[in-house]
Amino acid sequence: MEDINLHFTGDFSAIEKANNLLAALIDNNIQSKPASLGIDPRTVHWKRVMDMNDRALRRIIIGLGGTASGIPRETGFDITAASEIMAILCLSENFHDLKERIGNIFIGFTLDKKPVFARDLNAQGAMAALLKDAIKPNLVQTLEGNPAIIHGGPFANIAQGTNSVLATKMGLSLSDYVVTEAGFGFDLGAEKFLDIKCVSAGLQPQAAVLVATVRALKYHGGVPLADIQKPDAEAVARGTENLEKHLENMLKFNICPVVAINHFADDTEEEIQAITDKCRAMGVKCAVARVHAHGGQGAEELATLVSQVAEACQSDMTPLYDWNWSIEKKIETIATQIYGASAIDYTQQARADLKKIQDLGLEHLPVCIAKTQKSLSDNPQLLGRPANFIVTVREIEIAAGAGFVVPITGNIMRMPGLPAKPAAENIDINEEGKITGLF
Amino acid sequence: MEDINLHFTGDFSAIEKANNLLAALIDNNIQSKPASLGIDPRTVHWKRVMDMNDRALRRIIIGLGGTASGIPRETGFDITAASEIMAILCLSENFHDLKERIGNIFIGFTLDKKPVFARDLNAQGAMAALLKDAIKPNLVQTLEGNPAIIHGGPFANIAQGTNSVLATKMGLSLSDYVVTEAGFGFDLGAEKFLDIKCVSAGLQPQAAVLVATVRALKYHGGVPLADIQKPDAEAVARGTENLEKHLENMLKFNICPVVAINHFADDTEEEIQAITDKCRAMGVKCAVARVHAHGGQGAEELATLVSQVAEACQSDMTPLYDWNWSIEKKIETIATQIYGASAIDYTQQARADLKKIQDLGLEHLPVCIAKTQKSLSDNPQLLGRPANFIVTVREIEIAAGAGFVVPITGNIMRMPGLPAKPAAENIDINEEGKITGLF
Amino acid sequence: MEDINLHFTGDFSAIEKANNLLAALIDNNIQSKPASLGIDPRTVHWKRVMDMNDRALRRIIIGLGGTASGIPRETGFDITAASEIMAILCLSENFHDLKERIGNIFIGFTLDKKPVFARDLNAQGAMAALLKDAIKPNLVQTLEGNPAIIHGGPFANIAQGTNSVLATKMGLSLSDYVVTEAGFGFDLGAEKFLDIKCVSAGLQPQAAVLVATVRALKYHGGVPLADIQKPDAEAVARGTENLEKHLENMLKFNICPVVAINHFADDTEEEIQAITDKCRAMGVKCAVARVHAHGGQGAEELATLVSQVAEACQSDMTPLYDWNWSIEKKIETIATQIYGASAIDYTQQARADLKKIQDLGLEHLPVCIAKTQKSLSDNPQLLGRPANFIVTVREIEIAAGAGFVVPITGNIMRMPGLPAKPAAENIDINEEGKITGLF
Amino acid sequence: MEDINLHFTGDFSAIEKANNLLAALIDNNIQSKPASLGIDPRTVHWKRVMDMNDRALRRIIIGLGGTASGIPRETGFDITAASEIMAILCLSENFHDLKERIGNIFIGFTLDKKPVFARDLNAQGAMAALLKDAIKPNLVQTLEGNPAIIHGGPFANIAQGTNSVLATKMGLSLSDYVVTEAGFGFDLGAEKFLDIKCVSAGLQPQAAVLVATVRALKYHGGVPLADIQKPDAEAVARGTENLEKHLENMLKFNICPVVAINHFADDTEEEIQAITDKCRAMGVKCAVARVHAHGGQGAEELATLVSQVAEACQSDMTPLYDWNWSIEKKIETIATQIYGASAIDYTQQARADLKKIQDLGLEHLPVCIAKTQKSLSDNPQLLGRPANFIVTVREIEIAAGAGFVVPITGNIMRMPGLPAKPAAENIDINEEGKITGLF
Repeated sequence: MEDINLHFTGDFSAIEKANNLLAALIDNNIQSKPASLGIDPRTVHWKRVMDMNDRALRRIIIGLGGTASGIPRETGFDITAASEIMAILCLSENFHDLKERIGNIFIGFTLDKKPVFARDLNAQGAMAALLKDAIKPNLVQTLEGNPAIIHGGPFANIAQGTNSVLATKMGLSLSDYVVTEAGFGFDLGAEKFLDIKCVSAGLQPQAAVLVATVRALKYHGGVPLADIQKPDAEAVARGTENLEKHLENMLKFNICPVVAINHFADDTEEEIQAITDKCRAMGVKCAVARVHAHGGQGAEELATLVSQVAEACQSDMTPLYDWNWSIEKKIETIATQIYGASAIDYTQQARADLKKIQDLGLEHLPVCIAKTQKSLSDNPQLLGRPANFIVTVREIEIAAGAGFVVPITGNIMRMPGLPAKPAAENIDINEEGKITGLF
Repeated sequence: MEDINLHFTGDFSAIEKANNLLAALIDNNIQSKPASLGIDPRTVHWKRVMDMNDRALRRIIIGLGGTASGIPRETGFDITAASEIMAILCLSENFHDLKERIGNIFIGFTLDKKPVFARDLNAQGAMAALLKDAIKPNLVQTLEGNPAIIHGGPFANIAQGTNSVLATKMGLSLSDYVVTEAGFGFDLGAEKFLDIKCVSAGLQPQAAVLVATVRALKYHGGVPLADIQKPDAEAVARGTENLEKHLENMLKFNICPVVAINHFADDTEEEIQAITDKCRAMGVKCAVARVHAHGGQGAEELATLVSQVAEACQSDMTPLYDWNWSIEKKIETIATQIYGASAIDYTQQARADLKKIQDLGLEHLPVCIAKTQKSLSDNPQLLGRPANFIVTVREIEIAAGAGFVVPITGNIMRMPGLPAKPAAENIDINEEGKITGLF
Repeated sequence: MEDINLHFTGDFSAIEKANNLLAALIDNNIQSKPASLGIDPRTVHWKRVMDMNDRALRRIIIGLGGTASGIPRETGFDITAASEIMAILCLSENFHDLKERIGNIFIGFTLDKKPVFARDLNAQGAMAALLKDAIKPNLVQTLEGNPAIIHGGPFANIAQGTNSVLATKMGLSLSDYVVTEAGFGFDLGAEKFLDIKCVSAGLQPQAAVLVATVRALKYHGGVPLADIQKPDAEAVARGTENLEKHLENMLKFNICPVVAINHFADDTEEEIQAITDKCRAMGVKCAVARVHAHGGQGAEELATLVSQVAEACQSDMTPLYDWNWSIEKKIETIATQIYGASAIDYTQQARADLKKIQDLGLEHLPVCIAKTQKSLSDNPQLLGRPANFIVTVREIEIAAGAGFVVPITGNIMRMPGLPAKPAAENIDINEEGKITGLF
Repeated sequence: MEDINLHFTGDFSAIEKANNLLAALIDNNIQSKPASLGIDPRTVHWKRVMDMNDRALRRIIIGLGGTASGIPRETGFDITAASEIMAILCLSENFHDLKERIGNIFIGFTLDKKPVFARDLNAQGAMAALLKDAIKPNLVQTLEGNPAIIHGGPFANIAQGTNSVLATKMGLSLSDYVVTEAGFGFDLGAEKFLDIKCVSAGLQPQAAVLVATVRALKYHGGVPLADIQKPDAEAVARGTENLEKHLENMLKFNICPVVAINHFADDTEEEIQAITDKCRAMGVKCAVARVHAHGGQGAEELATLVSQVAEACQSDMTPLYDWNWSIEKKIETIATQIYGASAIDYTQQARADLKKIQDLGLEHLPVCIAKTQKSLSDNPQLLGRPANFIVTVREIEIAAGAGFVVPITGNIMRMPGLPAKPAAENIDINEEGKITGLF
């Protein structure tokens, strides 16, 4: 576990290096006269990345110090997981695909307003070479010896949110069932998994497991975090309107649902009952999973149930939208049908971005909405099943290499900061090389 | 070879991460009020590092964007090899030593002028944990199957210039002879190897091999680079005054010298002869090494000679100076005795740095002079055996963690830039994962 | 005229100097330890000003270059007319008042979140001394020898928009009638003149002249700018709904209205008629003014009419709102009653600013809304008499010295840029000192 | 006096405005594509100026905030007196000359290394127009009613150090004698007055008055500042070696010398005597001036003496060097003959600057050396009459508009900072407009 938490197999470092090589090539091209593409430094949105919670790198100015040290420009660092290279790695099917996607990365504009892509810098070969090993899925095992593949980590609130296509396909080639974690709620991880990754890779999942906890539903039922451990079955019951919306959303994809109740030590019978009641009312199967307490055994009931549902499922998964629709229609469909919004508002910047996407001929790309995971809406305060709210699209980023555009709603942070007392202060290593303080 | 040139075993990434963790901890402490050490951001000289030739990162401003994103300050990135962590890793004998050295890193001053060290941030445990595997020497083999240890890479023009103490000691525990490469001339790599690494680790080398080439001596004999392939034995003979000075320097350490003539295809007999003549005149043994053409076999004569000299050597290696001397005396000794300088000049900044070192109680540290490798002097234009020159010390950096101070002479570049046509443009990877274009 | 357009009596330079002295005192306090107020540099919103269209100064970073050259921070320059000092100068009644207002300027917060004002830096005395002559109104004359006072120039879209209280009072002490220009429409210049300046200085204007042009009303009637010179009486008639709203607004202040039709050479009789028809229908007196063509004589009819209306006016001017209302109520009153908005929207930033104003105890200040002059609404595209629109308040600036807060709607630019071909290129001065090319 | 110390006649503001107009035109040209000269922003050395001690403006980055707000670049503000416009104004003979000099201002290079001058931006007409009144000398009077012209203020340590040519010529046209103050020692103000201003304007001064004080000579005689008020005639005697060197320097210009002893209340007879003894020994006339104590009357003896010496003077003033000599020969001549240096050292930067001056065809310009006023040498610590010292030229600035180059020795500060307790804190203005606290 320690090794996974430290450098693991070096995938993140390789992604970081590939990402930063492109940045260096861009600034080098801006600096170099003979091979200049005429890039306008102020339009370059490609950032460097670092796998470090380092808020001071969020907004920086580089290229200072005179004619030998580049051209000054405003830019910043994101965390490595937020790199478009991470998203690309997770969607690529092979080296050819990887290079093509890298080549498609949109960098910015020339001084005479022509778009510039990574392929214009011949960057894709060297960047793919740096990913030579990182593209290979990593096989690990649980404490009980069960195989698990850990590969890639695009955040679900800003990218597609699930592991690599290659990992999923490798899993499918080796076993009867493959379970993909699609984090941050069905409205984020799962919507993107189904509408982007599955469509892109031709995957057809049979069943979907919605993980519910008593605590989360209690929170959606109006209980403040400070009181979340106090039993309150009524609050859980109120909170199941959130669960209900997610289950309704599943059905819009023609996918067969199962609810897994992730059991915590202080859950009461009544609280569990409130959830199972709702499931029964909706005709959805559910099982309590006690993995934290009992390991694999604690999930047996759930596993059996999921395999039954998957086998029995008659329908074919249908994506929510057609990639060929206009960007606005795609956004509207997700926001109204999945989030439950009544309308969409675009800022002036977002409208300019829509125009830019059109001008670049990228309207056919799917949309990967950046949204808070704390609410079905784009406002973290709206709990339960919000209605009558407007989703505001602030801007729309282009991830032409990954193959989607990212409408941004709310405040999305791509470079975290350390807390006032960083965990690093407690970490130590002894003479035998044993690390302590990681948890 | 490809793997060594790409990510190898991840040591550089780990060093980068440890270095940048300290940077993040520093900026986080500057940002955070409760745990604030009162660091004056303008005095922090600790830089971030990246293993990328990225000139635009040399001088940057970070912490922009308002109260949530840090405190604005001027800083920059160095290349990873230039990190003090690299120097520390290479001098550390074990985890305890590693942590102590990391804790000793000097960061800057508080607003009321008190020095701040990495230990004040409790950074050493977590940083050492990140180096858990990087501290282990890497065993590789040559095409002929000979073992070689590749571990660490501090630049000899700005750091101590040789691989890790652990690698050397591991080699000594496994074989009869260990050869350490100490690059960039006896005046740089070897002086630092003997005065810093050997003293620090208690090593006692018996023999030293000075690698000479016809081309280099021809260059020191006054032949411009464009004509360097034309035979010119007289120029070689003139250039041997440079060789002579290096051999004289060796004797000042009581170490037994051997000259290896690294043979190139276009070297003539007369040119080789000019070198062997000089060696004979000085009573120093020499052998021609034809490794490039003939592999291990081409070095047999040299190897035999070196083992004989090492066995026969009666003297004990003596360092050039006593670490307890004043910084100025140590600098003067190296500059006059090894470089051949007639005097030392300190800029106003360097004098202020001397005062700072004294105030910090760090006068006992050895000096690791940053100097061009192109001349025995600090002026790259002065070839052969320069005399009557003044060495100017511009500033003196403190590497209290590594355990030395770095008097800087001339212009030293710690973050290179890419050429107008970057090599990356030619690199590619095919469907089978085979990389081309690395050379 | 040339002298007025160049340095005039130096008032702008004096305002610039006073404004920039405060900035220098702030940065000096941040730099100096003994007298430090503990100001958090990131919270300082006081900008420097320069009377130059210099876009490159809009957003800058200062204080670079090490410990002797200040503390790095993000800031910028505004144009001099946008300085709060300009607004203060125009509202001050005497030196005592001037110093008190300057002392009240809100600068930012200390690191422990306490507010800092200019008086905390003892800045008011020296700043007022720099304004010693600038505070005196400037008397000039027209080509016909009529006296005019030119004093101060706060922009009506970002500040209170009219000349100094001292100028108005000096005028009142010297003549029977004083006409104050209150630019950018009754909704901007006049609303602020009546609600802020008149209330602050205890002025009671009797009549208000609304200046109308055929062109502007044609534009509000839907004619594009390119066709604005083509006769189109019907468009003018449609556009009078804009005039009508302004006249209705006047009556809300109990002030007696007159309409002046500012005559242009290409206006037709029918177009003029369309305006006079509307006035008659509303029972408002109007006169055509031909000042551009006929000088003072061209305004005789208007002048007579205005004096009659003023003499006959029975009502006392009543401000639209009570300064003691909440900031939100004041904003809502202006936006709904004067602009015709249906609702107000506050961004997250604006809500935070409302909170800050409350915390600072500044709720009693009048509001000086920054809004485009191109529409009655905050959207420059909405012509005529817009209805059913929402006014969005982006942020609220605090001008505690001037004595108002500035809710900002839309994009307000405080530092213009030069055009691609600057007028400066055509300006010249000959051997006799005669300037050409100013127009 | 107050008015002179505040805004006076607005000359400084006008110079500031002209200087900053050029800066705005440069950045506007860099921003604007249609009229672009292709200026490389990193080579622009033209700075903005502000008449304010504002250290935070010394080194700044401008042009931040995206494509509409300019191009990011490093620059800074100098104090207004340090503007090249100030130097130009003081050397210009009329508007034609003024415009030509402004047009000659060297701005930087294009991206393809061609020089750019202010005339390439058509800046000279508008800039000269802004100086329309500032170019006119200002006549003021002393408390006794004596006329004095105050016009221009270029610093003698960084510019030519004396008032305007127009002021001097106006004085000459109105009176029998004109005295020009040429500050900061004969080696700075006077050398530049004679070699630059007099040659440029064809002036032929007859006599030169060297102002000596007991205190300064005591200081040059080795007494620390803290003890400077204690009588010490021997120290004064020792210090007269400094006076002697200045007098020798005068003779090199064939100008007739007079020494004025500026009397302070605590000077002793013996100390005064030490100075007069030295003068007598050198055959130079001297008089004690008691202006501070007795006004004009206190200078009568001196005035009579100066007029006699000027009348009797037979020689024609001869400049020290020929403008057509090489830059290095001119520097060497001043440094060795006037300062007493034994050799000149050029840094790498200074050598590059010499090459640049040659390439620009500006070798014929006179040199205006920037040097400390605290020593005859470039090291402020060397008092008395230093010998055997090397003058180091760090860099050479080009003031092609003013018509000279500026070799910079030592640390020259062009933007001062405020003290920890700024004088501004004590300044106030009362209800009657009376200012207090200026002194």
